[in-house]
Formats: sequence, C-alpha cells, structure tokens
Amino acid sequence: MKDRWKHLRKNLFRSVEPKIELVLMSEPQGRFKQLLTTEIAPGFTARASHESKGATKDDIRLNKLLIKRGHHTPLEAVCFTFRVYGITKSLQNQWVRHRIGVGWTYRSTRNISADQNEFVYCTYDYLNNEEKVKKLLRIDEATAEEAVYSYGRKIELGATKQDARKIMPVELNCSGYFFCNARALRHLFSLRLKKEAEWEIRRMSQMLLEIVLRETPSLFEDFICQ
Amino acid sequence: MKDRWKHLRKNLFRSVEPKIELVLMSEPQGRFKQLLTTEIAPGFTARASHESKGATKDDIRLNKLLIKRGHHTPLEAVCFTFRVYGITKSLQNQWVRHRIGVGWTYRSTRNISADQNEFVYCTYDYLNNEEKVKKLLRIDEATAEEAVYSYGRKIELGATKQDARKIMPVELNCSGYFFCNARALRHLFSLRLKKEAEWEIRRMSQMLLEIVLRETPSLFEDFICQ
Amino acid sequence: MKDRWKHLRKNLFRSVEPKIELVLMSEPQGRFKQLLTTEIAPGFTARASHESKGATKDDIRLNKLLIKRGHHTPLEAVCFTFRVYGITKSLQNQWVRHRIGVGWTYRSTRNISADQNEFVYCTYDYLNNEEKVKKLLRIDEATAEEAVYSYGRKIELGATKQDARKIMPVELNCSGYFFCNARALRHLFSLRLKKEAEWEIRRMSQMLLEIVLRETPSLFEDFICQ
Amino acid sequence: MKDRWKHLRKNLFRSVEPKIELVLMSEPQGRFKQLLTTEIAPGFTARASHESKGATKDDIRLNKLLIKRGHHTPLEAVCFTFRVYGITKSLQNQWVRHRIGVGWTYRSTRNISADQNEFVYCTYDYLNNEEKVKKLLRIDEATAEEAVYSYGRKIELGATKQDARKIMPVELNCSGYFFCNARALRHLFSLRLKKEAEWEIRRMSQMLLEIVLRETPSLFEDFICQ
Repeated sequence: MKDRWKHLRKNLFRSVEPKIELVLMSEPQGRFKQLLTTEIAPGFTARASHESKGATKDDIRLNKLLIKRGHHTPLEAVCFTFRVYGITKSLQNQWVRHRIGVGWTYRSTRNISADQNEFVYCTYDYLNNEEKVKKLLRIDEATAEEAVYSYGRKIELGATKQDARKIMPVELNCSGYFFCNARALRHLFSLRLKKEAEWEIRRMSQMLLEIVLRETPSLFEDFICQ
Repeated sequence: MKDRWKHLRKNLFRSVEPKIELVLMSEPQGRFKQLLTTEIAPGFTARASHESKGATKDDIRLNKLLIKRGHHTPLEAVCFTFRVYGITKSLQNQWVRHRIGVGWTYRSTRNISADQNEFVYCTYDYLNNEEKVKKLLRIDEATAEEAVYSYGRKIELGATKQDARKIMPVELNCSGYFFCNARALRHLFSLRLKKEAEWEIRRMSQMLLEIVLRETPSLFEDFICQ
Repeated sequence: MKDRWKHLRKNLFRSVEPKIELVLMSEPQGRFKQLLTTEIAPGFTARASHESKGATKDDIRLNKLLIKRGHHTPLEAVCFTFRVYGITKSLQNQWVRHRIGVGWTYRSTRNISADQNEFVYCTYDYLNNEEKVKKLLRIDEATAEEAVYSYGRKIELGATKQDARKIMPVELNCSGYFFCNARALRHLFSLRLKKEAEWEIRRMSQMLLEIVLRETPSLFEDFICQ
Repeated sequence: MKDRWKHLRKNLFRSVEPKIELVLMSEPQGRFKQLLTTEIAPGFTARASHESKGATKDDIRLNKLLIKRGHHTPLEAVCFTFRVYGITKSLQNQWVRHRIGVGWTYRSTRNISADQNEFVYCTYDYLNNEEKVKKLLRIDEATAEEAVYSYGRKIELGATKQDARKIMPVELNCSGYFFCNARALRHLFSLRLKKEAEWEIRRMSQMLLEIVLRETPSLFEDFICQ
C-alpha cells in the first residue's frame, strides 16, 4: 500500500490513523526459561507426541514442518493480546466473523457518549485524481460532522445513548483489545492478507504481521510478500 | 414491548420491520422416525451414557433435567437455520460476538450496491412525548436519505462500493441466515432476553424464542416471562 | 479395506463390528420446503451475501464452488446426528480431539457396569499369515476375557465402578451419538480418510462418508476415491 | 484427598504419580510492562469498553466483578501452557471432551513403542481395609505387567505398534502439554472440582488450581475450598 493521499486526511474532522501494539505474549516460566523460548514453544511441545529431543534450531525447523504438514494444534501454545486503535465499524464487522481461537473487548458506544467519537477515513489509493479524492474525503468528513451534530440533537430530545448512536456512520473509529493464538492468527492472515481482501482489514493484517514477525518469525514468515 | 410509536415508522424513508423465519431444523431419519421426535432428541441421545430406556414423556422430563443440571451437550443434537431480516448493523455487531455453536451468512454491502439499502428505525418506546419521537425519527430518516444520496455521489466520483458504503449509518438493514444449535440458542437467550439487554437484540431474541417454543417447547420454556 | 480376516473375529469373546446410522438431519421447514432441499441449503443461504437467485442446479454448482474457494460457513446450515457403535477407546480418543462444530454423548463406563462390556478386534489386514493373525486375535481375546474377570473381582473387593474399569483394555467397545455439521464433517474427512490415518478411524470415516453421500452428494463427492 | 494408601503404590510395576508444571504464561510486553501485570490483564483490557481508568487494586476488583457478572471474555487475555504427566487414559478421555479455549499435544502410543509404558494406579481412598487395597492394587499391577508382556508378543508376531497397543489398560500413563486460557480453565474448575467429579480429574484440577492461584489469584480464588 502506497497510501499516497495520506496528507489529505491529516486535518479532516477528528481523523485518526490505525495503530496496533502488542500488549501480552506467552513467555516461558520457571525452569522452562532455560529450555525454550516463546518462538520454539510449538516445536518444543509437539515433541511430546514422539518423545523426541532437539536443540533450538531443530525446534525452529520443526515449527516450519508442523505448519507445512497442517499439524496446527501446537501453535496454540503461543498467545497474543493486541491493543487496536483506528479501525472502522466495517473492519470490526468483518473481523468478529472469525470465531475460533480469538476474542475481543471493544469500546462500547452503548456505554460511552458518542460525542467524542473519532473517524477513520478511506485511503482511495486506487484513484489517480487528487481533486476527486478531495471531494470524496469532503463527503466522508461532512457525514462525520453531521453525525456528531445529530447525535447531540438526539440526546437533547431524550434519546438514550444506544439509540442516539444509530445514525453514526460505519467509518467511525472502534478501538479495543484483540486476543488470539498463533494458529488463529495464521488463519486470519491466510484470508485477510490476500489481494482480494478488503483493503482496510488487509492493512490491519499487515500491521499485525509486522509485529509477530519480530517476536516469532518462524511461525509467520511464509506470509511475507503474499 | 408495547411498540406504541409503530405507526410513526410506517411511511419513513425505506422503513423495514424485523422478520424471522425458520428455514431448516433437525428431523429424525429412517427407522428413527418411529423412535424419536426433534424435541426429544436431546433426552433420547443422552440416554446413551446410561443405557437407560424411556417413553416420550420420560425424554421430555430428561430434557428439562439435563438443562437444570447443566449437562448441555445433548442439546447440540437439535440444529436450526433462520432467515433474518430487518436488523440494524448495531444489532448485527452484538450478535456476531457470539462465537460457539453459531454461524451466519449476511447480505454483503461490499458486493451489493448500497443504493437499494433499507433502514430499521428505533422504537423509542421509553418516550411519552409523541412530538419528540417524531423529531427523533425525522433525524433518523434524514440521516438515511442523506446517506443514500452521498453513496450515489461517491460512486459517481469513482469510489468502490466497499469504500462508498463507509458513510452508511448503523441503522441500515442487514439481512441474512443464522445457523445455531439449541445449546447455543439457549446461551443467546440467557444473555439477550434479560431486561438489561439492548432493546433491539432483545426484540429479536423474543421473536426467535416464539418460533422455537412452537417447535421444541421443553428445550426453551424456562425462558418464558423472563 | 479388504478385511480378509473378518471370519476369524466372528466367534471371539463378545466381538462386535462397527455400525453407524443417521439419526437426525437438517430439513427444510414450512414455506421453505418449496424453495430448497437439505442438500442445496448451503448454496441457497450463501446467496444472501450477493442477493442472487438461482434454480436447484445452480445451487448445487454453488455448493461446489463454495467448497473449492474455501467459503465454508454456509456448510454449517446442514447438521447431522449419527448413532455410532463398535468403536474402540483408541478411536474415540482420536475422534474427540476434534473440537469445532462437533459434539458427542458416549456410553459412560463410569456409570454403567462394565461386566457387559463388548470388544472391537483388530483387522490385521496387512498380515498375510493366517496363523499369526489367529495368534494375535487370541492375545486380544484373552486380554478382554481377563479384563472382564478382573473387573468382577475388583467390584467384589469393594472398588467403585469408575476405579474397577481402569484395567479395561483400549479395545473395549465405546458407543454413542455424534453431532456435527457438514463443514466439520468435511474437516474430519480431510484428515481421517487419508492413507496415513489410523485404519480404524479411516474405516469409520468411510462409513460416515457413504451415508452422507446418499443424502447430500454435492457436499462430499470430492472425497470419493481418496 | 488424604491419599492414605500412597505408600502401597510406591513399588508397583512402573508406577508413576501425577505432576503438573507451568511452562508458558501470558506476560506484558514493551511499554505495557509499566501499565499492567498478567493478573490484572482482564480488568485492564475490559476497561476498553467503558474507557475508564484505574489503579492495580481497581483492576483486581474489576476482575472479580467481571467474574461475578459473567462477563468472561476479558479472561481470554491470560493464557497458560502446562506440562502434564502421570494421568490415565480414563482421565485424558474426560479431559479432551472440553472443546473451547483449550488444546493438547499428547504422547502418541501410535508412534512411540509402548514397551516403555508407565502406569497410574488408583488411590482407593474410600476403602478402610488395607488388605483389600493391596489385593486391588495387585490386580491393577498384574494387568499392567501382562499388558507389557502381551504388547511385546504382538510386536513379535508382526502387529503394528498402533494395533499392538489395543490391549493396553486404561490405567496407562498419558503425558503431554495442555494449552488453555483463564476463561476455559475456570470452566474446567467449575465442573471438575465438584465433589461429584471423578477423583482423578478432580485431583488434577486441584493441582492446576494450586499453580494458577500462585500466579493470578484474583482470577481463581473463588474456587478455593470448593
């Protein structure tokens, strides 16, 4: 993603950009600190089934073999929690369709006043004409401004927060925490890093991939350059 | 739910009301047609663990006992598919947070042109002042009208359908199919029929409950009057 | 599987052979009886996402396309319950490692007296020497006879049923009911029909496949001859 | 559990006792090391839905409130991997019936020669008569000895390892790794720490509880003395 129109989003009404941070990750405990690292946990625990032994580099090789052969259960040894910020309701809705090995806690617009809502604007990377992109972003921005105004008006008229928010646009920022294990994350990547995936969930998947490649490269490196 | 302002929603812009229909349900096959009905399938299959035998009325009693004791696995023998229509993106988002024993296929605004979008308006049942309700519904309607207009304008300017839809409000109608087993449906009811649940998902749960009470009453009758 | 030594198992101590029956299956309800069959339910419900329409033969084609493209959620519309009989504890233990879209109720040796236990003997199809097979089956049979005797002795000495059964061999017959949807069943087939799979779970998978091919062929026919 | 006959098990044929160790656990990363601990991760991430802030002792209180109110999703932030040793096939079979938020890799008797098999003997804690306990353990031991002998004989006659093992008794030692999150572990405890639970899985649950009480007490302390 080139994101060549990024500068046009900077001063838009309550514009925010996506951000992902690693919050928690599985780490070896007690005497196991000497025996394994987070990265080699799948290979290390998989050896249980064959009672084989091996050095770190053997476990790395075993990680890759398990992935290649589709023996994915040992990948459940490695769990992550991410803080996610700057994603639209549209992305959120695609994301929560994943059901296995994943969990979320989200900012609830049922409980929080929406008058502080922020918005995530489109990249329109596929358009070449800057004037058209400006016009599109002006529509997106006007929709956001109008929604915040209407929300306030609805609250004044006596609507509950949960009813007032129903006029909020899909582009509104949802943030929260995402829990997953390495197996489920690989499944997410296999679907959402594809060229056919929606650009926003693909952008988020790319950001997630960059983080886990730093932590446990052998579990995810086959997704590079996909 | 009294729904005393229903008449005010009738002529609103592309206003639709919720509707749920039972599409498929587990039914006995071959020689088992003589031995069990859909309703008694949980009790009937649960007998496997004790090799006990009983008549239909014993299986009904066993159904209730399994539920009371928290032995819920045999409820997975009974599966349903529902067609769901007239629910907001807000309801959809709460609903898909359920992960176990459930599945969905939804109308995709990524693939379908959103210029035919319909909308589900709030009931505002908790308000006594008709004039205020009219004003609130006028805001909700104007948001919907504006969104359909802006969507068309964005398409003209070259936005893809998946980007154009990001200005659609949360009140837009999502429709689709819902797959679940009786165990997962009970879990949904236990959370979403509560007084504290959001009114829209509670309304939908009440509609689902009415359908399954007709088909397999002993599996759900403890939820009546909750 | 040729099962050429089947005749040698016939008169062994409490010898039973595997048997699988279809107990329940998803079937269309009400007005949907005119619109779809069990088999086309995945294609029919998948159309929700694109609001497309089609005849039965289009839905059959769509079924196959969904499978090929890995869009497996609509397969969750079709659910099965099977009665399973004549499987060893060893098979049961492999089987229950499947976790998603599946459920079981089993005969409980914790609750039922094990003195009526039956046994499932090996096929030894890979051996050419009948005398060796007879000797092996004699060892298997003697183990079963000895276990039933020791079980009775333990009960006499005051052991609980759940403790007495711990000397039962893995070859003991477990029976029960199996709940699954078409998606989970395809996953089972993809692993357990392979040449590398253990022969007993492969035999059971083959028996399951034969049943569902009769009911919903387009959902499973790519597994024929695997 | 008093385990008053423990001394009688000491010299039995290949007798092993259960042992559980914590191998991996979720831990805060990067800047989050200053903001949270493993224990407060559920409360900390749950705040996302209300955008509230609080000190460590508030998060501990929030942990307990989430548990009490049945808002269990944030417990999925905390994941564990345990090494498990000295459990029977009977316990393993009950355990793997848990399906959600859990995973295992086990020693495979399909792949490993069973002639090194070990055995886990019953406690018979409910019996008062030492002579009877000795007789029961003698039966259990003889079954194990006989099984190891028969296994060797079957291998000599040409049986595969996976067929030879089918005469192994249920009391044989299974070992492996167990992956779970705090939510799933609480579910396990709620069923398996009960007085009605089988003594062996109850013993294992008690051992697991002791470990996690040291690490994240507020997530599990309501199970003490159950």
